[in-house]
Amino acid sequence: MSDAPVTWAVRLEYDGGGYVGWQKQANGVSIQGLLEEAASRIAGGRPVPSITAGRTDAGVHAGGQVIQLDFPSGFDRDARQVRDGINFHLKPHPIVVLDAALAAPGWNARFSAIRRRYRYRILNRPARPALDAGQVWHVKRPLDAQAMHEGAQHLLGRHDFSSFRAASCQANSPMRTLDRLDVARNGDIVSIEADARSFLHHQVRNMVGSLQLVGWGAWTPADTRTALEACDRSKAGPTAPPDGLALIGVDYPDDPFAAT
Amino acid sequence: MSDAPVTWAVRLEYDGGGYVGWQKQANGVSIQGLLEEAASRIAGGRPVPSITAGRTDAGVHAGGQVIQLDFPSGFDRDARQVRDGINFHLKPHPIVVLDAALAAPGWNARFSAIRRRYRYRILNRPARPALDAGQVWHVKRPLDAQAMHEGAQHLLGRHDFSSFRAASCQANSPMRTLDRLDVARNGDIVSIEADARSFLHHQVRNMVGSLQLVGWGAWTPADTRTALEACDRSKAGPTAPPDGLALIGVDYPDDPFAAT
Repeated sequence: MSDAPVTWAVRLEYDGGGYVGWQKQANGVSIQGLLEEAASRIAGGRPVPSITAGRTDAGVHAGGQVIQLDFPSGFDRDARQVRDGINFHLKPHPIVVLDAALAAPGWNARFSAIRRRYRYRILNRPARPALDAGQVWHVKRPLDAQAMHEGAQHLLGRHDFSSFRAASCQANSPMRTLDRLDVARNGDIVSIEADARSFLHHQVRNMVGSLQLVGWGAWTPADTRTALEACDRSKAGPTAPPDGLALIGVDYPDDPFAAT
Repeated sequence: MSDAPVTWAVRLEYDGGGYVGWQKQANGVSIQGLLEEAASRIAGGRPVPSITAGRTDAGVHAGGQVIQLDFPSGFDRDARQVRDGINFHLKPHPIVVLDAALAAPGWNARFSAIRRRYRYRILNRPARPALDAGQVWHVKRPLDAQAMHEGAQHLLGRHDFSSFRAASCQANSPMRTLDRLDVARNGDIVSIEADARSFLHHQVRNMVGSLQLVGWGAWTPADTRTALEACDRSKAGPTAPPDGLALIGVDYPDDPFAAT
């Protein structure tokens, strides 16, 4: 019998509001810590290490996060048992497994991913959020979503995104290819959707912080290009708060959940 | 100087999750109690009685509730001061004034209303809600939204809705005219929207409880008509939980907020 782990892919939804973020840390409760603990409970208490498609920060949410769980060899459950078993042990945390699937040989949640999709939601009205509290960025000044969309288009393509990169970013290169950055208004909500193979740390929140300047007229749409070309974090807008951000999807060449 | 009250209309959003409902009660914190207290704070501590367009039950939410506030004579503020002042004193409760407007003479939040609109949201998937916790009804069995919509159409028009009326209902008559009952699926969410001049107590939740039976096949769409015609609460489905319900709009012949 092989000692190789039995690798599962799980798709997660969570409200990141009360946690230190995805990654395990000494100073608080993490999504990763809770998920690994719940997974361990259905694996006879043995450790179940995880790999994420995208490390979300404290307060950032997920609607379609993908995680790799390496169960100990001999672990034998069906998809429903994995999903429902982990969900049982995750109660009452606002973290749930939406789908679970046995992974194909060689699949890696992080390195096999070819696209991540984030959504950022701004609540644009005078009154603070009640129903969406903790899941939107509240901006009182009226925003012109069409101007924001125009500004966003200047950021598409392969560029040095140093102007939108956190100082703490650990990536080797500031080069990234942004495939989509759409801004649209629906009532009081201004939604920004961003697609790329991968993002720098805080890249989406930093782009949103600049687009918000375009939205209320402090910047012209073309100022986003000037900020990008400066390759200097101090030339771009502020970092938007985590509340409005959610990782909503991760794509792989072969969808691990196609059969679920 | 007249002693007549200075009547304002306010439009409210709230998360009803932590409260005993709209109406003031001895046994807990109500939306009405909190709103009247906040309104009193901007009126020099004098009492500010309120009238609602729709008494929501414990756990029921609002996206467009309309309330009449009768400020003491001599109260003199502009719309922004009323909205922001009340919102300041409502913190940190998930209750906010979206709009405020001085009411036209004779306007009454309850009796002038010609249409109420409610939305009920069902989260239809195996995993419990994380991001929408407290704001949806979680139904695991797969629901056929098209069959539910078909069943809903049998309830349109003027009928005796005794089969969908709570025992506690205080209305004089069980006759109501249902103008719209639309069911549609968007991903894992099945939304039901209901329009009428007025509803009986629990009418929307009781209609949803029956439509859910149609959704998973326990009832045919036409069984909703049989239940309606029985004029007997025991012949209809169960009462859906409050979490999924929100009062999303109230219409008046002249929109009190047209100028805001």
